[in-house]
Amino acid sequence: MQARQARIETVLAATLPAADVPPARLHHAMRYAVLGGGKRVRPLLAYAAGEIVRADPARVDRAAAAVELIHAYSLVHDDLPCMDDDVLRRGKPTVHVQYDEATALLVGDSLQSLAFETISRAPLADAPDTQHEMSGLLAHATGSRGMAGGQAVDLASLGRSLSLPELEFMHGHKTGALIRAAILLGARCGNGFDTVAEALERFAQRIGLAFQVVDDVLDATETSATLGKTAGKDARLNKPTYVSVLGAEAARRFADELLADALAALEPLGAGGSRLSQLGRYIVERKS
Amino acid sequence: MQARQARIETVLAATLPAADVPPARLHHAMRYAVLGGGKRVRPLLAYAAGEIVRADPARVDRAAAAVELIHAYSLVHDDLPCMDDDVLRRGKPTVHVQYDEATALLVGDSLQSLAFETISRAPLADAPDTQHEMSGLLAHATGSRGMAGGQAVDLASLGRSLSLPELEFMHGHKTGALIRAAILLGARCGNGFDTVAEALERFAQRIGLAFQVVDDVLDATETSATLGKTAGKDARLNKPTYVSVLGAEAARRFADELLADALAALEPLGAGGSRLSQLGRYIVERKS
Repeated sequence: MQARQARIETVLAATLPAADVPPARLHHAMRYAVLGGGKRVRPLLAYAAGEIVRADPARVDRAAAAVELIHAYSLVHDDLPCMDDDVLRRGKPTVHVQYDEATALLVGDSLQSLAFETISRAPLADAPDTQHEMSGLLAHATGSRGMAGGQAVDLASLGRSLSLPELEFMHGHKTGALIRAAILLGARCGNGFDTVAEALERFAQRIGLAFQVVDDVLDATETSATLGKTAGKDARLNKPTYVSVLGAEAARRFADELLADALAALEPLGAGGSRLSQLGRYIVERKS
Repeated sequence: MQARQARIETVLAATLPAADVPPARLHHAMRYAVLGGGKRVRPLLAYAAGEIVRADPARVDRAAAAVELIHAYSLVHDDLPCMDDDVLRRGKPTVHVQYDEATALLVGDSLQSLAFETISRAPLADAPDTQHEMSGLLAHATGSRGMAGGQAVDLASLGRSLSLPELEFMHGHKTGALIRAAILLGARCGNGFDTVAEALERFAQRIGLAFQVVDDVLDATETSATLGKTAGKDARLNKPTYVSVLGAEAARRFADELLADALAALEPLGAGGSRLSQLGRYIVERKS
């Protein structure tokens, strides 16, 4: 896992414009936002999914980097004063605190563009049309019917109570869509996607939701120092979460059930799915 | 021109998620930001460039819509309080005034994703690799080495004076990159791009710059009512422009010289370039 985290760090560092390319302050801030932190869960999922279909790792590098750039952009914008208004991320000041608000806005905007530039670089797949479908999949997962849409629902839900289906809709979009994209994009870099699609879709759906349930639990039970980001934020913002709806203990049990179902989905893949299984466990059992 | 403006309006309306698709408020705001206003200069340029190589108009529709969605996203974010802090756009309240700041942020973010989703839909060109290059071109023109980068330079220049080369760098990125993308993407929807590339590159460079010079002049000389956006903003923000550096009259002459050079670039194309020539004239001679 550490080897792959190091690998994606190198890929991201090479993908981002150098800090001395004009406009230098913007490029400096983009590198600050992306490099030197983060668990890189989405790239790890992409690599593990690619492994199942024996995808060329150099292709998965670019798909994984594109997804991580989208994730990084979303964090920068989510932390802005008009959104979650947060000052701490990955143990460092957030981008708008370290630089300024306008720069943070442009950093997020530019990281999104860079993600699509990265995933447009051919070839990512043997069949030419597959790559168009891959960019389309990432764009759909990122936009208003994916991550950004989930964020809009999240904002609208502050101070309200949500039913479990509403909560699942919100998290499925806010977090699940990009987790799913990471897994599917990694697998689409190889051949034989159709034979694994069903297993991966089911795994992605369960583990994407479990990821957010665990995030809700950690926010309620861990410290900012452990998390590297502000803890207790959901309660302070009066945000409906799996903890506020179910309680921390039942939320933890729900995550365990989702994990069991996710792992069961991978059984037909045999040994090829073992790295993805490990990551599933890591996502649910992590402490930060 | 009106027929094409109506055509792109229809394409945009069909490309945007319907206003009742959840999250409905976000989709409502996205439609508010894009539809019912704007001169659609970039789509018109794409159609005119596509005509030169006899591109299928249904393909150009999608390339043109993608570029216009990027342009619309940039306006929404540029108007935010941390950027230009503007309240009027296309004769209506800006998105963050009509909705709220967080929604405006997500509208811009989502429009950018939708642009890349739109340009990923195959096929846009006969050669499969051409379409990857097209998405890559749009992403590059949109990001930190294109439009967003120009915006960063613009912000950094407030209250400073710039040399003409610095001003040209700023405008070339902020406005020129996307104008160029509109023209090249339109032409890449057809075949025989190589035979017209040189002429289009030169036209795009000149007319992209002329567009911004004229914008600078109009901001200084016209009223908000005529422009449908706040006039006199550059002087109020102490922003270096072609008017502040050259004076309004010399700036106007500079735009005329750029136009003459842009039109000369199209001469080798003969009658095929006539629509693009007309648009060049319109861009420089417009009053709003």
